Amino acid sequence: MDGRDDSVRERLDKQFAFIREIDKEKQIGRQTYLADASRKETDAEHAWHMAMMTLILSEYAREKIDVGRTMALCLAHDLIEIYAGDTYAYDTKGNEDKAERERAAADKLFALLPEDQAAAIRGLWEEFEERLTPEAKFADTMDKIQPLLLNHVSGGRSWKEHGVLREQPYKRNEKTHEGSQILWDYAEEFFLRPHVGKELK
Amino acid sequence: MDGRDDSVRERLDKQFAFIREIDKEKQIGRQTYLADASRKETDAEHAWHMAMMTLILSEYAREKIDVGRTMALCLAHDLIEIYAGDTYAYDTKGNEDKAERERAAADKLFALLPEDQAAAIRGLWEEFEERLTPEAKFADTMDKIQPLLLNHVSGGRSWKEHGVLREQPYKRNEKTHEGSQILWDYAEEFFLRPHVGKELK
Repeated sequence: MDGRDDSVRERLDKQFAFIREIDKEKQIGRQTYLADASRKETDAEHAWHMAMMTLILSEYAREKIDVGRTMALCLAHDLIEIYAGDTYAYDTKGNEDKAERERAAADKLFALLPEDQAAAIRGLWEEFEERLTPEAKFADTMDKIQPLLLNHVSGGRSWKEHGVLREQPYKRNEKTHEGSQILWDYAEEFFLRPHVGKELK
Repeated sequence: MDGRDDSVRERLDKQFAFIREIDKEKQIGRQTYLADASRKETDAEHAWHMAMMTLILSEYAREKIDVGRTMALCLAHDLIEIYAGDTYAYDTKGNEDKAERERAAADKLFALLPEDQAAAIRGLWEEFEERLTPEAKFADTMDKIQPLLLNHVSGGRSWKEHGVLREQPYKRNEKTHEGSQILWDYAEEFFLRPHVGKELK
């Protein structure tokens, strides 16, 4: 392989066009505050945090997981939000047309890559969304527990601002145990329960 | 394994203390501007971008690499900056005591983890710093090429602000080819050379 070869050069141009485009994920804001509540985090920061959590917590996966593949799922799972935007978990209206918006975003974004890689990276996104493999289930558990942790340590600020009700986080997390029972039990007890009010338990 | 078991519970407490602490990496600023030059990126965003680049560009590695391990090196390589701060590549004074500051930071940060994991994550950082394995060489190439790309697409703004001279980026990148000759050749031609002036080639 030689970078002066036209076909390699064309491939590199496409790959770097994609790498440049995904820089925009650093500008997609989430509703979750940083631990010190100084500002809200970005999608890219959230994805990095989830991948680091995978590295630290993989021993608790319900089924054996490939850690590298699970990190890749974490890193890539929100890419399509560059065009589709972040839909807050507790935004009922925004979630109505979320799937359609995200599919259109995926078509546009992954088309920047060479065909084989477009299929591979789209495959990571679809695997995460379908939540059928052990890796996807664990990545989903990371995606759910990470904001529970940050909401807790930042004093529940995001939930208060959005008037999140007791049923909502429990409903949203009804499958979080599928990636890891131990991690769900821990997160529910220490990160979630303190913020839904004593009368509810 | 049961989360109600005291030893498991203690292990989880340590792991989540670390996961909470590394949230601070989202507040470590770098000197590199985002592609649209609207603001500078954070360490966590930079690490995420490098890991995504590894996923897309691993085929160009000079030696065969384990992609998962290389992504882990990218994700973890700047953790110690939470305490040591980011030292700008072209800050001569700041680089004098960088190694010492970073070792002390590593001692403090990794001590939050259970012992086995403290050794493992510290090992990732040391492997990256020593740049001896194929994975560490490739991760270093990502660490060098990512800011070259962003400096280029943001119009060379960061280098202009810091008065970066011709020799500095070439000196800093004298080993970048060790991870991938093709990627270094491409980055040098399209991202670096346009910003050091025509008279220099």
